[in-house]
Amino acid sequence: MDSSFLPEFAVRRARSLRAFRAPSARSESNPDGRSASSSSVAVQSSAGNVRKINFCQWCGGPTKHEIPHGEEKMRAICTVCGKIAYQNPKMVVGCLIEHDNKVLLCKRKIQPSYGLWTLPAGYMEIGESAAEGAIRETWEEANAEVEVLSPFAQLDIPLIGQTYIIFLANLKKPQFSPGPESSECQLFSLDDIPFDSLAFSSMLVTLNLYVEDVKAGKPKFHYGTINKRPGTSPSDIHAFTLDYHLQS
Amino acid sequence: MDSSFLPEFAVRRARSLRAFRAPSARSESNPDGRSASSSSVAVQSSAGNVRKINFCQWCGGPTKHEIPHGEEKMRAICTVCGKIAYQNPKMVVGCLIEHDNKVLLCKRKIQPSYGLWTLPAGYMEIGESAAEGAIRETWEEANAEVEVLSPFAQLDIPLIGQTYIIFLANLKKPQFSPGPESSECQLFSLDDIPFDSLAFSSMLVTLNLYVEDVKAGKPKFHYGTINKRPGTSPSDIHAFTLDYHLQS
Repeated sequence: MDSSFLPEFAVRRARSLRAFRAPSARSESNPDGRSASSSSVAVQSSAGNVRKINFCQWCGGPTKHEIPHGEEKMRAICTVCGKIAYQNPKMVVGCLIEHDNKVLLCKRKIQPSYGLWTLPAGYMEIGESAAEGAIRETWEEANAEVEVLSPFAQLDIPLIGQTYIIFLANLKKPQFSPGPESSECQLFSLDDIPFDSLAFSSMLVTLNLYVEDVKAGKPKFHYGTINKRPGTSPSDIHAFTLDYHLQS
Repeated sequence: MDSSFLPEFAVRRARSLRAFRAPSARSESNPDGRSASSSSVAVQSSAGNVRKINFCQWCGGPTKHEIPHGEEKMRAICTVCGKIAYQNPKMVVGCLIEHDNKVLLCKRKIQPSYGLWTLPAGYMEIGESAAEGAIRETWEEANAEVEVLSPFAQLDIPLIGQTYIIFLANLKKPQFSPGPESSECQLFSLDDIPFDSLAFSSMLVTLNLYVEDVKAGKPKFHYGTINKRPGTSPSDIHAFTLDYHLQS
């Protein structure tokens, strides 16, 4: 199994690990595999694996896999029309919602990381800004109307070609309830955040930085890279180093 | 012409406007159309236009264009294997290099915006972090070795599906020279920045914010959305509003 392009999952048991391995195939064979919310965090098949691009999406011609003239990376190049299928990292946008000194988390009702807690977040769409995407995802996952207050974190995960963009936000009204992908939405005081049951290492890092900042007096903006430790299971959301941590 | 998915160009004359309109065709017909640096800011064909995706890149089957069950956006769906070709915004990463109270700019030797000034920046690649990408692009475009100091700006441009991520950086050695895509690299004091000859509105915004911050004492982190004003030419890099400007 090529673990280079696995999404950032939390899987807590061997049985779940098999379940975890399934979505890639599922999303490749089933258009509904990505669940109700089009842009929610889920497997996007072939992420970054140029060898899985076999045909040109514009003309249908077969591709070859080569380093184009003047470039440095292997690309899928159409043997008929010559176009190159570039692949780029994806942005995941979400909200860290503060309310009465608590933060809002959603329990996932979908794989991956079924039953684990996350901030409302999902893939940014073309045509929206990151802030708009974060507001949309919060509405979809927690039925909560929020106002974005400030950027809080950008966390790159090079191994899986994802960048998390998290904003601090407030509830416009003190109302929320689980959307189709959530079984539960709950406000947690900082001492009660379920750090043992978080869905993704990006959420672990974000919430840790937030708690530290609040204790220190004021949230900053954080940039960092989450590098999974080689040889560790993708199920272990603690198996990473936070590199290049910079603050503004 | 569907202007919804145009890249952010600066074009200064009607003749250039035609040249500006050409790259989309060029990049679709010519694998070298994207120039020497694979990830430099240039046209990526079909950005966001789902109707241009006619075939499945995995199995080669023809696509249909529909809103998938449970989703809200039109997607290209393979009629054979059922996979959905999701499209997402692209990140452009770059450096604002401070040296002796000056900033380093590169004069573009390629289209779009040939002959205009830009910060070194280009498309982020899968497998690298934003900071690594910004360092790489600076090396490619200005032969400069830099150290990234802090995140400075995230500027989304929803109209063209791009997000600019700019870092403040220092030269590791006081050396730089034009790379293959630059005709010139030059340090400018803040009073001499060529605001009339900048390549992209993202660079205009970034440099304006930077000058303001330096005059106010200290750079912050800025998030904002660059919304092109409806009905204006893509050639006018001043024809936008900076919305959702948030600072950390």
